[in-house]
This record gives sequence, structure tokens and C-alpha cells, in this order.
Amino acid sequence: MAQWHHSPSAGLATVFTLDDILRASVSFISPSPSADASTHSHLPHAQKEQPDTPVLRLVKEARNKGYETICLPLTTQNWRDRWEGMCLLPSSPAQASALEIDKVEKTGENQDDFGAAHLTTDAEKKKKDRATAAEQWRARPGFLQDEVTITRIDEAEGITLMISDWLELDAEDDGIRHDAEIALQQELAYASYLHIQTAILPAPRNRSHVASYARVVNNCLKNTPYIYLSVRLPIYNPTILHTQAAPPVQSYAGPGLGISPDVTNASSSSLPSLLVSPVPSSPSGSASSEGEMNATWEMWDVIRSICDYNTRLTLTLDLTPPLPSKLGVLSKWAAESVRYIFLPASTFIANTKGYPVLPKPTQDFIRDCMIHRPTVILADVITNKHSRGGEVAYSQYVKFLEKTSAVVRNAHQSGTVEHFAQGYQDYLQAPLQPLMDNLQSMTYQTFEQDPVKYERYEEAIFRALQEWPAGQRVVCCIAGAGRGPLVTRCLSAIDRCKRDVSVYAVEKNPNAYVTLQQRKVREWGDRVKLLFGDMRLLEVPEPVDILISELLGSFGDNELSPECLDGAQRFLKPTGISIPSSYTAHLAPLSSSKLYNEARSGKNAQSLETPYVVMFQAVNILSGDKQEPGGRCGPQIQECWEFEHPRKDVILNTQGTPLTNNHNVRSARLRFWIPHAGVLHGLAGYFEAILYGNVGLSIHPHRKDVVSKDMLSWFPLFFPFKEPLYLPSGSELQVSIWRLTNERQVWYEWHAESFLMIMTTPGGKDELSMYSGGRQNLPSPTTIPSPLADDDAFFRTPAQSQKHLSQRAASLGGGGGYEVVKIGHTSLHNPGGRSSWIGL
Amino acid sequence: MAQWHHSPSAGLATVFTLDDILRASVSFISPSPSADASTHSHLPHAQKEQPDTPVLRLVKEARNKGYETICLPLTTQNWRDRWEGMCLLPSSPAQASALEIDKVEKTGENQDDFGAAHLTTDAEKKKKDRATAAEQWRARPGFLQDEVTITRIDEAEGITLMISDWLELDAEDDGIRHDAEIALQQELAYASYLHIQTAILPAPRNRSHVASYARVVNNCLKNTPYIYLSVRLPIYNPTILHTQAAPPVQSYAGPGLGISPDVTNASSSSLPSLLVSPVPSSPSGSASSEGEMNATWEMWDVIRSICDYNTRLTLTLDLTPPLPSKLGVLSKWAAESVRYIFLPASTFIANTKGYPVLPKPTQDFIRDCMIHRPTVILADVITNKHSRGGEVAYSQYVKFLEKTSAVVRNAHQSGTVEHFAQGYQDYLQAPLQPLMDNLQSMTYQTFEQDPVKYERYEEAIFRALQEWPAGQRVVCCIAGAGRGPLVTRCLSAIDRCKRDVSVYAVEKNPNAYVTLQQRKVREWGDRVKLLFGDMRLLEVPEPVDILISELLGSFGDNELSPECLDGAQRFLKPTGISIPSSYTAHLAPLSSSKLYNEARSGKNAQSLETPYVVMFQAVNILSGDKQEPGGRCGPQIQECWEFEHPRKDVILNTQGTPLTNNHNVRSARLRFWIPHAGVLHGLAGYFEAILYGNVGLSIHPHRKDVVSKDMLSWFPLFFPFKEPLYLPSGSELQVSIWRLTNERQVWYEWHAESFLMIMTTPGGKDELSMYSGGRQNLPSPTTIPSPLADDDAFFRTPAQSQKHLSQRAASLGGGGGYEVVKIGHTSLHNPGGRSSWIGL
Repeated sequence: MAQWHHSPSAGLATVFTLDDILRASVSFISPSPSADASTHSHLPHAQKEQPDTPVLRLVKEARNKGYETICLPLTTQNWRDRWEGMCLLPSSPAQASALEIDKVEKTGENQDDFGAAHLTTDAEKKKKDRATAAEQWRARPGFLQDEVTITRIDEAEGITLMISDWLELDAEDDGIRHDAEIALQQELAYASYLHIQTAILPAPRNRSHVASYARVVNNCLKNTPYIYLSVRLPIYNPTILHTQAAPPVQSYAGPGLGISPDVTNASSSSLPSLLVSPVPSSPSGSASSEGEMNATWEMWDVIRSICDYNTRLTLTLDLTPPLPSKLGVLSKWAAESVRYIFLPASTFIANTKGYPVLPKPTQDFIRDCMIHRPTVILADVITNKHSRGGEVAYSQYVKFLEKTSAVVRNAHQSGTVEHFAQGYQDYLQAPLQPLMDNLQSMTYQTFEQDPVKYERYEEAIFRALQEWPAGQRVVCCIAGAGRGPLVTRCLSAIDRCKRDVSVYAVEKNPNAYVTLQQRKVREWGDRVKLLFGDMRLLEVPEPVDILISELLGSFGDNELSPECLDGAQRFLKPTGISIPSSYTAHLAPLSSSKLYNEARSGKNAQSLETPYVVMFQAVNILSGDKQEPGGRCGPQIQECWEFEHPRKDVILNTQGTPLTNNHNVRSARLRFWIPHAGVLHGLAGYFEAILYGNVGLSIHPHRKDVVSKDMLSWFPLFFPFKEPLYLPSGSELQVSIWRLTNERQVWYEWHAESFLMIMTTPGGKDELSMYSGGRQNLPSPTTIPSPLADDDAFFRTPAQSQKHLSQRAASLGGGGGYEVVKIGHTSLHNPGGRSSWIGL
Repeated sequence: MAQWHHSPSAGLATVFTLDDILRASVSFISPSPSADASTHSHLPHAQKEQPDTPVLRLVKEARNKGYETICLPLTTQNWRDRWEGMCLLPSSPAQASALEIDKVEKTGENQDDFGAAHLTTDAEKKKKDRATAAEQWRARPGFLQDEVTITRIDEAEGITLMISDWLELDAEDDGIRHDAEIALQQELAYASYLHIQTAILPAPRNRSHVASYARVVNNCLKNTPYIYLSVRLPIYNPTILHTQAAPPVQSYAGPGLGISPDVTNASSSSLPSLLVSPVPSSPSGSASSEGEMNATWEMWDVIRSICDYNTRLTLTLDLTPPLPSKLGVLSKWAAESVRYIFLPASTFIANTKGYPVLPKPTQDFIRDCMIHRPTVILADVITNKHSRGGEVAYSQYVKFLEKTSAVVRNAHQSGTVEHFAQGYQDYLQAPLQPLMDNLQSMTYQTFEQDPVKYERYEEAIFRALQEWPAGQRVVCCIAGAGRGPLVTRCLSAIDRCKRDVSVYAVEKNPNAYVTLQQRKVREWGDRVKLLFGDMRLLEVPEPVDILISELLGSFGDNELSPECLDGAQRFLKPTGISIPSSYTAHLAPLSSSKLYNEARSGKNAQSLETPYVVMFQAVNILSGDKQEPGGRCGPQIQECWEFEHPRKDVILNTQGTPLTNNHNVRSARLRFWIPHAGVLHGLAGYFEAILYGNVGLSIHPHRKDVVSKDMLSWFPLFFPFKEPLYLPSGSELQVSIWRLTNERQVWYEWHAESFLMIMTTPGGKDELSMYSGGRQNLPSPTTIPSPLADDDAFFRTPAQSQKHLSQRAASLGGGGGYEVVKIGHTSLHNPGGRSSWIGL
């Protein structure tokens, strides 16, 4: 199998500050050009060995220490001073006056009685000059050479740029936002000139204007066609910030941009200049509210949505805040495009020996993040924050976390599905259509590698034969023998139980049938009788006791096992059985920006209405197993439907096959509880099958290890949604899925609706109707005994519902009721099988 | 102006029942074929005069009574009996046994001791026979001739078909649903064979399976390419239904369709067979909850969404339920595709004279519905429910309501914008680009028809001149004179105030400049000096006191008035003024399935990212004026930004024009309160301008009649959204809009996010976090004085926020807090001006 995407290991990076560069400059003695020329003139390439700028020396040192990536700020304090001088008002009027007076005194002018008046004129002139400078800059933005840290293309090589973090792209003030946008475009244009690949953007700070931040980022992606942008974002909004005093806000010096309501009072709100405190003041693992945990993700969701899931936009997750002890709410980051992890030395704690280590939740989170193969940016690691180990201890520790992460361990352990699937993670494959297409020998070979599946089949056949009435001759028929793996297993089972068994092997693929003939000659001899043809049409010489087939797809019935076995059932004795005897399809709601983008990038418009076979990796199952108090929802992964074989109640025609395929139509409506906010991108589909008795096959995430551990043959199915659906914390997702059929095809259609269950005040109907939407009565358990039929059909008496609502509310300690408010839906996917179907 | 769409008046229809047809059949004496032949053989067309089937006679009678449309059920009781016999189990096992015993006794067989056993066999055989019949029907669905009411193409002419109302397309049971779908397809195929244009579908009854109902409807639209389908729907879910006993549920006789969770317990839930009680038992105008009022609309929303807003899918609004006295919640139907109104005689009350009239709320609602030009289906009007007036009284009353509706009255009243706009309602027009394009004479002519606009301009000029310092000569310049309407008005104002005024008229359109030259020669003479050229480039011979322009678009600045006047400002004296002196842009969130479909049907993919000029009709403004208790939201229609002229603080180049256009960048973020659930399809854009003093122009719906009543020149602007956004009752919509610019273009970008403000329990943080999403702290008014800056930025101390939340909760009588939960967003529209821009 080919390697499809990102490098198999995480990277390490270090980040330099302006101070680091300044120190390097001070200690840097420029090599004399003449000495240089005399010594190295015959070795032009050797000049590289002796870096000739401070930045080059810093980079070389970092590379020697093993860092693959070096992060560097692009602009110097000079640029900040110039920009602020042009675009911002002095931070207070008093300061401004003081500055002006200072200036006036120094120049020694206007020391007469009219000083004040002259001062005003002078101040106005300064203001005008500043405004003119700003406007000239806006007309032609550009740097002076001492405003940037690097000027040469060799200095920029392999550098990840840190964009000026004082740029407030989401400032309250329209003017500051606008000038920050121009400054950002200027930095990116310069970075692009220097052939820099990636720039890390300052974190958004202001939920109110995150749409503006996002619009700017989208514009930059459009204007700088090749650069990758990464949004730095603290993993959540830490409580610790709330206790910090906010610095005074900057005021815009430019012309007012109208009287937009959001602008006029901008300067009255406070805005902290630091998003994340480097020294956490609250203990690690302290309880944080759902809202705090969600706040930064919610901003990210707005940003990447406004940027239309641009693949050049990634995340730099800042792990400065201490992580909570339960990571459930953080699992959402698995579904996002995390490219960097920012990890300052301050996040590390000292172990008993004084070496830097990470708290347990941070360890676990970083291990989980290894599915993204991120580059870990170690910051502030040269200042000896920890007594032992030195700088190298931090890198070693991160490498240790990588090696001990589940994803890396599994990938290296042969026999696991993760090892088998290397390179196929999150890669979309069209499901096989073995009924319509004749499979290739290579395809058979791949699936025959599965040791577990065939072992399970042999065990099922063995048990069925053992339990068969003693003394009877048994007729087995392998329907769909392929290249013969089940024939071999069937013969092994027969050998083990020493029964009198006849074996027929049916196959419709003429190419595979050649292999079967050869194996009969070389291996099986008279023990097996081969029959060539479609099991739905061909005749078997004698009635069959055990019909053995391997026609299952990732979703159970999706390769038309029900229809094929319906057709083969006619040669089964009335007492005959089928292996498998039944199978079920299962679904869970999924978030994955990667899979959404992959599905979107398909060749045609229908690519988002087609199920795919996928080995999931950068995904997050949105549903929770823990029941919400209402008890309306099922578990995290829910069953859709079942097929059983043989099927007795179907009306047959004179050929013994079903008159119509209507009995194989199915539908399911499932309710999922969404504990943490996320974006629905699709549904994960799984199957379970009972082969015989308690021998089964399963790819259900919760049960596969019990039923058929390390089975390799099936990756899950992915049903994409065309429009991502936002699901708030505590919402309910109702998924409808249909299996439909006509004379020639079988297909699935799917759809989802979202609801929010909200609490209402004890008796205040008026307030209630002001705060929430359509009231849907919860059903009364006295009229509907089954929780599965416990629907929100609205034909209930209000008295019944009110009583029940009150009971629920009382049991929760509150005095109010509940309402289920509809909040969104997707479109219907694949109507009429227009985008995807399976041929009969 | 051309008529663009539907007929200018509503239609009338009557509906016949199976009983009506039966009665017509009984009283019908078929004309003898021989007599027919002898009498009419020389007049082949005269046969039509004497209808030769009961249905034809009923239709002829109805047409004679003035009904344009006749509604008829297609299938007879025979079909229902056959379908139920095949597809349903007898309603209880006891009944089934009784039936079988009855049958056994009649045949006189098996009266021995083994009767029970034989009985079982016999019952099983019957069951098998029924199942076989059903399966044969499913394989080849079709009617017998006595199962349908019409068989001939002439009988079907002009008929609107009522689909069998006992078909449960949303039954709990998968099998019943599936067989109902086959039966529906069969009816529609037959209707299509008879060339019937429209069929009315039975109402959905079951919120839980409305997605299945909708999927079936979508499939029918696909399979029957020309037919129009109309979903019958009670206008809301009336409380009265809740007190009715539900009839026993039907059980499916076919093979089980798997064990899907929704199926297994289907028979245990109750399902009423009638959605709407014909005799309301609760008084009209009684209080109904928001949920009851929304329930059926919510189902409609799912249906039309799943059907992807198919234009062949319409609504038949059933007005059987009594309407509430406040119609606010019902205004949502204005935005939907209402084609029929079902109005039974039972909805009418008797006036003091005994004539049938409608309750006031129903009158108002039907008058409002006239924007749809619906066909009103009068039902059950021949049974003399009211003592006076007879059948004709109902039709006359409906015609009276039509004539007295605002939309019909305005359309007929010359001078109103509604009269002027006839044929242009809900028709999307690309906004003019008068700067980039030179307008046609016909376009000038249309706009010069506006009597109000130019009267306002004359008044503004008159007042400005009157208030000008006495004795001074005044220089006026009309910037963008077009064909000269403002020149004429300016001269009138000068004549009225008798001042010494010089008038310059600037125009850049060379074609219009010919008209100006001609008017100067014929009308104005030396009073006016003409200048040819772009106002941003040309020189005016002397400094100007009053700069007069009419460069405004529907959204104020959207025809680049700011940029043009910036360029013209250079020839204004420092004391000079501009008419208009300022203008503002305003927005409101809008729902309209018609506009959504119109925008979608545009030629290219960008048609949903372009603003349009539209005369709104079938629309609903989603925002409410009544403040929600949190006080976070603005009014129903909100101001985005303002432009003022002349502008003093802009940095100019040596030519006197601005160095850059950055000062004309704008952005706004607006918060709208959504009282009733609806679907956001776009934004309505309006402008207001101050010409001079208190003389203005306005198309703001709340103020236009005060400021500039009956002004015709501007229809509102419509900013569409690509993806309809569902907004629950009590939600908050945050709209971001940006006015952006580069050297060559100006464009708008827009985006929206939705939130739900929900109540939480008094102290239960755990319960709270289980029921709701990201907690966003409400800001404390002590730190942020302005309500406009009152943002949900999350950098507040928890203590501050908690205190404020508690204060708010206490003021509402509850003990809990509030949370603002994000529930959805749109994409960013028109990024970088990729789909629409205005050329500079």
C-alpha cells in the first residue's frame, strides 16, 4: 500500500524572540570581507559554514540542537513604533499633551505667553503629519530595512514566520482593524517575497469581531496564493485570564469610518493585549465550564468556516493553559487541522528529580494529537526553568510522548488494523461493487490477508457442523467463493469435526473461477464441486443445509448481501441455515474537517452525496454515551436495522425468488445526544454480523475487539453531509436514513435535524415563550411504554405532557419544564440514488 | 412595465366529496347512445353541452356557479378497501379471529373437534393470499376501473386532485409508509396519464416521520415531472385536537422490514386519522403557545427543505383551526409558497343577519394572503350551515376580502409605489452602475417620473438658499445632472426664493449631455452653465457653495456616491455644503422562499452572492421590534453606517482628491431579535438621506411615509444568503456586513451567526452544563456603559458576569441565569468582491 499523506512522525521546532535576535546581533562580529575573500575565495560554498548574519547563526545553532523548524518574528520594534505612531492616538490625552510639551521645550520655541495657542497649532500640525504619513503608508505599504528581522532569502529558508502579535485584527475599532489588515498583508507580501512557506497568525482575542478577523484571514489566503497560514489559539479560554487587569486600549488616529454602531464606543471597552498568561495562577485540572472550554474552538469554527475550510489554513494549538483532568471536551480538536502545538517551558512541571515533565492531562492530550503529526514548538526552553536536564530535556520528553502514543505504537505493531492501514488514514475510497463488477485478483489477495475473518468463519462452520443432527450427511454451499478462501476454511472445519459433508462452491466471476478450477485440481479434488454462475439464477444439484457467504460490506448490507442471499435461498432446505445468520448496520455522527474537504474535492458535485470507505483518523465522534437527563437519546453508536437469513415470510415467484425487493427496504430514525459543541460533517457507518451462534464479525468501535479483534477486511463507511451542521453543546441530533430500492438498484438517502433541549421557568409561560421556540411536548410514559417509540409526535394532551415535564424537572431538582427547540437541518442526501447506488 | 408573474386576482374553488359524486351518479340517467347519435350526429361538438358522466355534470354545475377550479378525490372506497385488505392487518387480533370464524361458519366446513387447527391453517392461507396479492400489487401497481372517480381525459380537465387522505405517508410503521408511497405514486401516475396539473397531498400528521413524508414527496416530484404538488397543512396545530380520542392504529400486514428501532413498537403508539377537527371546540382567538403556532410550519419547513425548494411544491393552507387574535406569528406564511387556502363553511360565523362572515383574525389573515393570489377552496358550502345567503354568500364574501385587501387596493391606486411596481414584485434586478455604465434615456425617464423625490430636492435647495447669508451670490453645482431634472428643480427653487444664484450642471454621460444641451437651448438659456466630464476629474470655473447630487442607491452608498462626492468636494468652498448632507444604510433579516429560488435560478454560481434591487412582496421580516428581556438586540431594522458630505478629515493629494479610499471602508455588526421561528434567506437593505435640514428621502419601511411618502425611485436592496439559516423562536441573529474597497472597486461582504439565549437553573452548574452549550458571559453594565458596545466578548471576570446574570434573572422573576448558545452560521458572502462589485 502506498503512503498517502503526511510524514509518519511529528516535528520539533523552537521559537526565537526579538531579544534572542538582538542578543545574537550584539555578540555577532561581522567577518571582515577582505579576510573572507582571502581565506575562502577558492571555496565559494564554504561561506555557508560560517553564517554571516545573526539570524543565520541562530538558525544554525537551532538545527544543530535537532530542531527541524525555526519560528521567528518578522518585524522589529521599529516597525511597531512607526505603525503605532501613524495609526494610533497616544494612549491618553494627558500623555499626548505631555509629549507635545516635551517636544516644544526641546525645540526651544514658543516660550512666550501665547505658548498654549501655538502648542495647539503645533499639535494639530503633528496630527496632520501623522495622518498624512498613515495615508501615504496605506497607499503604498512597505517596510524600512530596520523594521524587519530578515532581509535575505537564505535567512528565510525553513523559517516559520510569527506575524506581529500586536496586530489587532479583531479590534473593536474599525480603523485599527483596517490598518492592522493592511499591516498583515504587508508582512505576508514580504514573507512571500522571501519565499517563506508558513506564517503563524496572532490569536483572535475578541469573540465579537471574530468574523472580521476571519474575513481578513480569508482575504490574505486569497491574496497570497501559496502561503500557509496557521492561527495560533489557546486550547481554551482559561479562567486565569479573567483576573488579569486589562491594559489600556489603543485609540485610532485615522479618519473615522462612519458611525457604525460597533465603532463609536469602541474605546470604552477594555481589551487585553495578551491572550494567554504564561504563568498559570490556577491549579492544573481545575474545573472549567463548558463555555470556557468551547470558547476558542467556537472562534476557530467561525474562522475556518468563513475561510471555507481552506486547506492552507491550519491551527497552532497553544497549550499554555493548564488542561482539565477530563479530556472529553478536548476530543473535538482531533477533527481539526492541527499543524503546530505551541508548548512553552512554563507548561512543564518538574518531576521528583527536577527534570521537566508534563502534567498527566497534557501528556494524554499531546499523545492524542499525534494523529495530526504536528510540529511541536518548544518556547522559552533555554532559560533553565527546570533544575535538571537542560534544553534537550524538553525535546526528549516530547519525542518520548510521541513514541508512547497509541497511534504511533499501533502503526508500528504488525497485525493491527492501524499497521495494515498505514497510508490509508482518512483516505476516501469508493465502496466495492462486487455484484456489478468482477473483482481483481489483487483485491481478493488483499482481503485474503485477513487472518481473523477466516478464522471466525471456520469456527462458525465448525460449530454449525458439530451441532448438526448426528449421522446426517450435510450439504454445504459457498455462495460467492471468490478465489476460494472460504472453501479451504470449510474443508478445515470438516476435517476438525469429522462429518460427512458435501461442498459446493458457487462463483460468478469468470476470472476467479479459473483460480477455483486450479485449486480444485491442486488442493481440493473431489471434496469440492464447482458451479459457475450467479447465485440468484443458477441451479444447485441438491438441496443445501448450510449456505456460507461472505458478501458483507462496511455497513453490512451495502454490497447487496440481502438481495444475493434472497436469490440463493431457494436451494436451501427448509431446515437449512445461513452463515452469516444475521447482520446489523450502525451509525454515529462524525466531525472531521479533513474528510469534509476530501469529499468536497471529488471530481463532481455529487461527491458529497456518496458513501465512502475510510480508515478514520482525524475524526471526532460527536455523540456521547452518557445519557442526557431527558432519556430521549440512544447510545453513542446506534443500530439502524437488521437483516436475517434465511428469510421465511417473503412471497416468491415460480422460480423461487422474491416477487419484488420491497422487503429489503429499510429506514431508521436515530437520536444522538451531543454533549460538546461540534460541527457535523458526516456519519460513520459500521456493521456487526452473527455468523453462527455466538461467533461473529464486528467493526463496531465498542465491540470489535471482543468479537473479532484485529480483523482487517473492513474500514468503516462514511456518509458525508454537503453542508456542515453546527451542533451546540447539549444538543440532540436526529438522523434519518433510508435503504431504498427499485428494480435495478439499491441506494441510501440520509438527512439530519438538530434540536436543543432547554429548560424553562417553573410557571412562566410568557417568559418561556419569549426565551424559546416551538414547544414540543415530551411524550408521557403512561401512554407509550417503549423508550424507542418515545417520540416527539405532537399529538399528546397538554395535561399529560405537562405532568410528565414536571416530573422530569422535579427529578432534576429544578422547578421548570423542558422544551425541545428545533435549531437546524441538513438537506436530503442522494435522493432517488442520483449520486450513488449499488447495481442489482 | 411588463407583467412578470401570477394573475392579478385570487381564484375560487369548490371541493367535491365521494358522497357528492355518488349522489350525482344516482341521479344521473345516462343518455342513450342511439338517441345521442340520432339527435347530435350532425353536431359533434354539441355533445359537450350535455355532460355524459356524473363528474362532468358536477363540474359544469360548479363552473356555472363561478368556481374556476374544482377539487375532486381521485380514488373511491373500493380502492381503499382493496389497499387496506392487502396492506393492513385487521385492526385487532380478536377482530381477525372473528372474521375468520365468520368465514369458516359460512362455508360450513371444519365443524369438527379439530376446527381450531383447521381454522389456523385457513387463517394462514388467507394471510398468505393477502400477502401474495399485496406483493403482486407492489410489483405492478394499478387501479381497477371502479377504484377511481374519473376515467376520461375530459373529466380531468381543470380538476385539482385531492390525493387519498387516508394514505399515511408518515405512519410510524415502515411497512405502511412504504405501501402508502407506492399507492401515492400510483395515484400520481394515473393523474399524470389524465393530464391533471395539480394534486393536493394529505397533510403530514407525525412530526417524528415528517422527513419520511418529505422524502416521498421529493421522490414524487422527481418521478412525475410536470405535476404540481400542494401540501395541505392546517395553519397551526390546534389545541382542540389534543382532547380528541385517537382512533385505533392500523397494523401492517406485509413482511417486517427489519428491526429498525422506530418500527418495532409502532403499533403501540396512537395516531389520529384526522388532523383537523371540523368543529372547533375552543373559542376563536384563544391563547395558543408559540410551539402550537409553529408546529405545522416547522413540518412544512422540513418538507420544502428536503424537496430543495422545488418550485412545483406549494402549500394548501387549511384555515379550519380558529386563528389567534394576534397574527404576528402567522406572518411567516407570507414568505412561503401558498397556492391554495382551504376554507370550510365551518370556519365562517353568522353575522347578526345570519349571513356567513369570517372572524376578524381570519379576515385579516386572508387579506394578507392576497399577496400570493391564492385559490380559495370553499368546502362544505352547499349544506346551508348558515341561515342566510346560500352557497353564493361564501364566494361573495371571499371576493369582498380580496377587494378590501391592502395589496389589491394599493395595486389599483395610482401614485403608490405598489401601483408603480406592478409586475415587479419579488423580481430580482441587478443594481444600476451609473458610474461605470452610461444610463439609457429610458432609464432616466423612468426615474424622472418620481414626483416625490424631485419635490423633496427642490424643497431642500429652496431652504438652503433661503438660509444662505443674505446678499451673497450663491454658486450651485449639480454633480451628475443626467437629463436635467435637478437643474429644473434648482431653477424653480431659485425662482421661489429670488436669490442671485449661478448654476453649473456637470454630466459625464455623453449621450445625456446631448439632452442637456438641448434643454439649455430650449429651456434654461444662460441661467445654467453645462460642464462635460467626470466630477472626480473635471475643473469647475469657480468655487461652489452648494453641491447638489442624486447619486444614491437603494442602500445609500451602493452607487458610489461617497467616492464621487469625495472627488467633487475639491471645487466646494470651505463653507460649502452638499445636498444630500448625509445618508445611512439599514438592514433587516428577511425570509422569502420565492426570493431564495429566484436568486438561485441565476445564470451562474455567484448569483447567491450578489445584491439585487427588489420590490418585496412575498417576504417576511424575521426580526422583531419588541426587545427581548436581555436587551442585547437592536430594533427590527438597524442602521449599518453613515456617510457625511463634505468630509473634512480626509488627506488629499495635490489634485485635491483623497490619497486612498480607506476612509470609505465601513463595517457593522448588528444584533437582531427573532421572536418567531423562520428561515433566513437574505437581508433587506434600505437607505435614508438627509438632503438639507429636516428635508430627507427614505425607503426605511417604518419612516418612508413620514419622510418621503409615495416616492417611487428606489426599491429595497436584497442581499441573499447561499444557505438558508434556520432561526428558532427567541433566537438572536448577528449580522456582519462590510463595505470594502481597492483601487478599482467597491463591494460588500456579508455573514451571519445565530444564537439562542436560554435560561439556566438557579445554582445547578452541572445541570446547566448538561443542558446547554458554551456559556458566554453577558457583559456587566458597570464596566461597559454603552449598550452598543455591550458585547459578548468573553474576557469578563466570572464574578462580574455572574452578578449581572443574577440581576437579570431576578428582574424576570426566575432564579436562574442565562446563556447565549451559538447555534449556526452562514458562509462569508462575496469575499474579495468575487461575485459582485461596483466599478470606481
